[in-house]
Amino acid sequence: MNRLLLKQQLTQFFNEDIGLGDRSAAALGQTRTEAVITAKQDGCFYGREVLIEGASLLGLEVLYVLHDGSRVQSGTEAARLSGPCDSLLSGERVLLNLVQRLSGTASLTRKAADLLEGTGVRITDTRKTTPGLRMLEKDAVRAGGGASHRGGLDEACMIKENHIAAAGSITRAVEAVRRTAGPLTAVEIEVETEKELHEAIQCRPHAIMLDDCTNDEAMRWAALIPDGILVERSGSITLDTLRGAAVPGIDFISMGALTHSAPALDMSMRLAVKETVQ
Amino acid sequence: MNRLLLKQQLTQFFNEDIGLGDRSAAALGQTRTEAVITAKQDGCFYGREVLIEGASLLGLEVLYVLHDGSRVQSGTEAARLSGPCDSLLSGERVLLNLVQRLSGTASLTRKAADLLEGTGVRITDTRKTTPGLRMLEKDAVRAGGGASHRGGLDEACMIKENHIAAAGSITRAVEAVRRTAGPLTAVEIEVETEKELHEAIQCRPHAIMLDDCTNDEAMRWAALIPDGILVERSGSITLDTLRGAAVPGIDFISMGALTHSAPALDMSMRLAVKETVQ
Amino acid sequence: MNRLLLKQQLTQFFNEDIGLGDRSAAALGQTRTEAVITAKQDGCFYGREVLIEGASLLGLEVLYVLHDGSRVQSGTEAARLSGPCDSLLSGERVLLNLVQRLSGTASLTRKAADLLEGTGVRITDTRKTTPGLRMLEKDAVRAGGGASHRGGLDEACMIKENHIAAAGSITRAVEAVRRTAGPLTAVEIEVETEKELHEAIQCRPHAIMLDDCTNDEAMRWAALIPDGILVERSGSITLDTLRGAAVPGIDFISMGALTHSAPALDMSMRLAVKETVQ
Amino acid sequence: MNRLLLKQQLTQFFNEDIGLGDRSAAALGQTRTEAVITAKQDGCFYGREVLIEGASLLGLEVLYVLHDGSRVQSGTEAARLSGPCDSLLSGERVLLNLVQRLSGTASLTRKAADLLEGTGVRITDTRKTTPGLRMLEKDAVRAGGGASHRGGLDEACMIKENHIAAAGSITRAVEAVRRTAGPLTAVEIEVETEKELHEAIQCRPHAIMLDDCTNDEAMRWAALIPDGILVERSGSITLDTLRGAAVPGIDFISMGALTHSAPALDMSMRLAVKETVQ
Amino acid sequence: MNRLLLKQQLTQFFNEDIGLGDRSAAALGQTRTEAVITAKQDGCFYGREVLIEGASLLGLEVLYVLHDGSRVQSGTEAARLSGPCDSLLSGERVLLNLVQRLSGTASLTRKAADLLEGTGVRITDTRKTTPGLRMLEKDAVRAGGGASHRGGLDEACMIKENHIAAAGSITRAVEAVRRTAGPLTAVEIEVETEKELHEAIQCRPHAIMLDDCTNDEAMRWAALIPDGILVERSGSITLDTLRGAAVPGIDFISMGALTHSAPALDMSMRLAVKETVQ
Amino acid sequence: MNRLLLKQQLTQFFNEDIGLGDRSAAALGQTRTEAVITAKQDGCFYGREVLIEGASLLGLEVLYVLHDGSRVQSGTEAARLSGPCDSLLSGERVLLNLVQRLSGTASLTRKAADLLEGTGVRITDTRKTTPGLRMLEKDAVRAGGGASHRGGLDEACMIKENHIAAAGSITRAVEAVRRTAGPLTAVEIEVETEKELHEAIQCRPHAIMLDDCTNDEAMRWAALIPDGILVERSGSITLDTLRGAAVPGIDFISMGALTHSAPALDMSMRLAVKETVQ
Repeated sequence: MNRLLLKQQLTQFFNEDIGLGDRSAAALGQTRTEAVITAKQDGCFYGREVLIEGASLLGLEVLYVLHDGSRVQSGTEAARLSGPCDSLLSGERVLLNLVQRLSGTASLTRKAADLLEGTGVRITDTRKTTPGLRMLEKDAVRAGGGASHRGGLDEACMIKENHIAAAGSITRAVEAVRRTAGPLTAVEIEVETEKELHEAIQCRPHAIMLDDCTNDEAMRWAALIPDGILVERSGSITLDTLRGAAVPGIDFISMGALTHSAPALDMSMRLAVKETVQ
Repeated sequence: MNRLLLKQQLTQFFNEDIGLGDRSAAALGQTRTEAVITAKQDGCFYGREVLIEGASLLGLEVLYVLHDGSRVQSGTEAARLSGPCDSLLSGERVLLNLVQRLSGTASLTRKAADLLEGTGVRITDTRKTTPGLRMLEKDAVRAGGGASHRGGLDEACMIKENHIAAAGSITRAVEAVRRTAGPLTAVEIEVETEKELHEAIQCRPHAIMLDDCTNDEAMRWAALIPDGILVERSGSITLDTLRGAAVPGIDFISMGALTHSAPALDMSMRLAVKETVQ
Repeated sequence: MNRLLLKQQLTQFFNEDIGLGDRSAAALGQTRTEAVITAKQDGCFYGREVLIEGASLLGLEVLYVLHDGSRVQSGTEAARLSGPCDSLLSGERVLLNLVQRLSGTASLTRKAADLLEGTGVRITDTRKTTPGLRMLEKDAVRAGGGASHRGGLDEACMIKENHIAAAGSITRAVEAVRRTAGPLTAVEIEVETEKELHEAIQCRPHAIMLDDCTNDEAMRWAALIPDGILVERSGSITLDTLRGAAVPGIDFISMGALTHSAPALDMSMRLAVKETVQ
Repeated sequence: MNRLLLKQQLTQFFNEDIGLGDRSAAALGQTRTEAVITAKQDGCFYGREVLIEGASLLGLEVLYVLHDGSRVQSGTEAARLSGPCDSLLSGERVLLNLVQRLSGTASLTRKAADLLEGTGVRITDTRKTTPGLRMLEKDAVRAGGGASHRGGLDEACMIKENHIAAAGSITRAVEAVRRTAGPLTAVEIEVETEKELHEAIQCRPHAIMLDDCTNDEAMRWAALIPDGILVERSGSITLDTLRGAAVPGIDFISMGALTHSAPALDMSMRLAVKETVQ
Repeated sequence: MNRLLLKQQLTQFFNEDIGLGDRSAAALGQTRTEAVITAKQDGCFYGREVLIEGASLLGLEVLYVLHDGSRVQSGTEAARLSGPCDSLLSGERVLLNLVQRLSGTASLTRKAADLLEGTGVRITDTRKTTPGLRMLEKDAVRAGGGASHRGGLDEACMIKENHIAAAGSITRAVEAVRRTAGPLTAVEIEVETEKELHEAIQCRPHAIMLDDCTNDEAMRWAALIPDGILVERSGSITLDTLRGAAVPGIDFISMGALTHSAPALDMSMRLAVKETVQ
Repeated sequence: MNRLLLKQQLTQFFNEDIGLGDRSAAALGQTRTEAVITAKQDGCFYGREVLIEGASLLGLEVLYVLHDGSRVQSGTEAARLSGPCDSLLSGERVLLNLVQRLSGTASLTRKAADLLEGTGVRITDTRKTTPGLRMLEKDAVRAGGGASHRGGLDEACMIKENHIAAAGSITRAVEAVRRTAGPLTAVEIEVETEKELHEAIQCRPHAIMLDDCTNDEAMRWAALIPDGILVERSGSITLDTLRGAAVPGIDFISMGALTHSAPALDMSMRLAVKETVQ
């Protein structure tokens, strides 16, 4: 988590909603108020830094906030803020929009991680994140027990179908990226057939991704991959099929759904006027 | 749609993904290539301006792109881009991340609008949009046949539960906002009980929102509201209950799910190498 | 007022003036000093948030500052700041440039509002604001007793001469904007002739603007407009003609001059060295 | 003029007005249209670069535009743009807001420069510019026949009353700034009394500013200042008193009013639909 | 290389130098001119994208430009631009400042890479880049024949002295980072003693860095490190000692000097007026 | 020094290095720690404001920091920071990258200024600064005892070879820039021959720059230049030749090397864990 970047993103998000000013705020005044954020569903909370930095930007105080990754039940108090009534209301929607979505991602990841417990297989995210929210969504995945796949196109080399087609073969694609990749840059090859798998193994990449295969294929193919090369599975895997997909030899399974289709975790924010100021 | 703002947002989104540069691009070269974006599900397309401006930023050409709101079926070609192979691949994920999400919102809205056909009731969005994507998500709602609720806190006054509590009563809250609201600023009051409804009607707002009530209550309450005041229903309405919720007297129904829970519309982008350049 | 946006704007304004650094500051040192901002003309003050946020950015303390909208006379102390001498001087010009201009707008609005007292007609601003200063200028209008017209092109639909020409008729223009406008989006039609007025009334907009007509016309036309449609007058109205323009039936009068031609309210900032620090 | 900076400023100004999108644009369509900007008052035009870069950002073409500094009469066509009807209308207000204000500054400067013709005295601006518009306003002053005073606090050293008080004396203030000022950095001293003038002359600055003195004082004091030190007059000078203020020995007169109180030059933009496209 | 990011950086750099406008440009006019950039020293050129994007921002044309990594001799023409004389001059300094520095880095890297030829050891950069220029400097290193070490703190885990001290031991530090690191995130451990080396090997990281050791130590220690763990040397290595430092077992050597101490490659830009325009 | 601008620059620099978050920070925790920055070479320190503002952005405390321009020896403690261990480590590299470079510039300038001691000749920087670091590098030059040449193209007029060629002659170039230059804008002319010198003198500029001449020429030419015109020498001057170049009649000597070729001053940052928090 980069707090300076978070601060910039939150400023942008508040400005998007508040614009020239909250026109309803006049009804509110600056009565000092407490606001309680409560989970209305079971799940896994994410949003500690969002609330701390968001509150700071709005001139609010955080009295209490759960740690990221905490399991919550319907009714669990996730956070308690304090400050002028109008600032609390002006910031409410943006903060909830973020925390609900991100807790949704953390909760879905938590379910996936729990399903994989004992298998030694890790669940990871993808680059199918919401534009503008990558840092936060990937952090929410970690909070839910998942691991981060590459952060962006500049972090590792993924040789996919289109790269192979453009380069002419897996081997030529790998040679091309190795000419510019640094020694710490992981190279991963996506394969769709056993023939591609054999060629990929010859290239000695850091990881091989088995794309959209059956559990039988996955097991058989993983067995062919020597130690020292990580094995990823990806494609069309849901919570229902996840445990079965964790066949021997697989190191991690990536699910785009963690960030593109996680249902928001329902939460509410209630105010309780405390004492009149100013 | 504000194209200058869109251009800024897309630049930010591409930078988030590309960072210091696409490390896998070396495998690709600048072969001139065509890329086809195809729907893999039935739904409603949104993303015309996103693709046109995105392509322009990346130095690509748009050969063809559907109009926003077009109905697509699995297999429908949504767009066709052309340009250097490496630029196409570097931009693919961000463009798909956007277009799939936004088409998801357009598609869900389309379903809702279709369900309401013939009732005279309109479907609208809320402020429960993804932080950073409000303009695009609200445009996608319009493309899907919905109408925009207020764009932000600076566009209209919504008097909600918390405002009423802070001001002391609905009447006092309305008086407070009217002191600063301009003549074109709509004032809408959210009511939860019939007692509140009567007080709200006395205030002659532009609209009254019936929050989380039964269909019977909604019908009875709507009948009490005089002409010239719009009636909105909101809260706990799903596609399953939507048609039933459109009881006589309701003008529009808002659904947060249009923007916070629309499943992405699955789409793919395939490249076809055409001719080698440079 | 959106304080986060204000902070960004002030940062930009200070950077515009200070650039690589205040070259004269070396003569000043960091002696702790008080600075008093005093009105040199009668008028209406605006600048409380500007001074509070500006001082915070510069590391200064606000000891005292008037509330926005306070009437001042020549000699009234508007604000008192405290801090290092060099920071006070480096920020002086930008702060005065803003507060004088905005107090000028508040003062002109105050005069207009006072002239309209008892008529029930409100004075409003327009979009003829200084580029980059819309939020502040519109807030200054409110502080001076005026009301805000729409905040920008995204807040309401104004059907003007050019829209009518492009659409073919008032009716077709209104139909076109209603297809995309949300239920809370006000629609206002500008009319120049009685024929247009009749057509406009048929469209049942939220408001009709009578553009550049005589007082007689205004009174006659306003009488034709049914209840429930607001009536605006605009065009060529000055402080001298304002009271007369407030004929029966008019709800509000907009004056571009409030923001494009308000003479600055003269103010000075004087330093008084207090104690030497560092 | 820095075109890259201008482009950034214009983008910000358009976004301020257009926000999430021009809601009235739906009535307009993209009919290709010409728009003519016409002066409605006599004066001096400024806005060539503004219109060229603004048009480019909006996807419009500039068919014709006056050179900055051109004298216009009521009825003079200042510019002619061409493009889609909706883009022309969405950009109209921002472009006119800028060009009218800046032409106002150019026109007032032109009047001042004309009044000084033959005296050898130049008219200059001050730092009393509109926050955010310094580059454009100073350029408009030059277009109107004026000269630029320093561009900001980082361009020259001005020793004013407050600096003198803080440093203890003129001499000590000058010594302090000279320790950090570079060889090309002009040092100017503001004096209010003859005693101060004598001390200032001893410091051999680039310029001395006679603040708020009578014409007699100005003439007498200017005569005391040796060649090689420029003499500026400032304070309480209006168009009415300007020519008289240009007494022998004065090199330039600065007027804050050029940028803080210039009345906008009235201009209009009219559309003429030409041919239907798309 | 991310061209959108490059465009933003260049805009910022031009604005830093041009500010409110090039005051000397008036002497130049817009005569169409060619400018030739010529190397005045032997070395390795870097700046192709900088010149292409920079020219585009300034409205210039690139007639010719070397490919990055090209070897140049004193007198080699590196690039030829064309455009209005004033734009060429206004951009000259920023473009040369960048291209000279970056060519300096490419040239130093080239020398280092040449020295290592035949050893199988690669030369890499570090994070000791100029703040604000990381993307460009790392790209210049690649152009000079080097490889990129990690791009930033978010790309790989480096366990250094301070991390070890804070965690308590190498093993605990590695365990801590592995809990959050993704499967593609490289982990590298810096060791200063043989005892640390043994512990590091037990952790099976992707790479081990031998910090500031003698060639004898390096050779002995490298021999202890099993296959599959990369070996880096770093610290106090200069061009003079580089070849000797490339002892058997070393995979790559990182030199901060490539980016923090590379002498700029001297280049000049000469104009040749061609034809008068406008 | 403009602290608001510095804060923006530091935020950008930290984001460049930290990206989505420091992946190694997990090993560190938030143990409260002190960090000592120590000089490892003799020289002149610059970085007080950088460390103060940088620490503030990272949530750190500055316990002690040298004043800019302080002479340091190997071993001198330059600064002492305190705060959470992970924040200290995440910020270390950016802060050191800046302080080492800028102290390198201050140190080189200090050497040059010392060499010129007693001659009355000042050493100045040029516009050959690192793009993005101009404010800081020019401030470091001042801290090292140098003086600032113009801050950018908008601060003074330099008539160079290319301007003369484009304008046709020195005289015509000067006339052209004087038409737009303000009274405080310095005009400097670069001359390469005695013929040019004579023409330049006739123009009565603020300064004349003798470019790339021998010491004999410099002395002879300087003698021809009347009082009231400053004389600058520039071109091919190194520390070795600097004292000799300071011939009678020269006012200042500019050296691009102060900012483009100053070797970084080696410094280290060491942590000392103090007490465990949280």
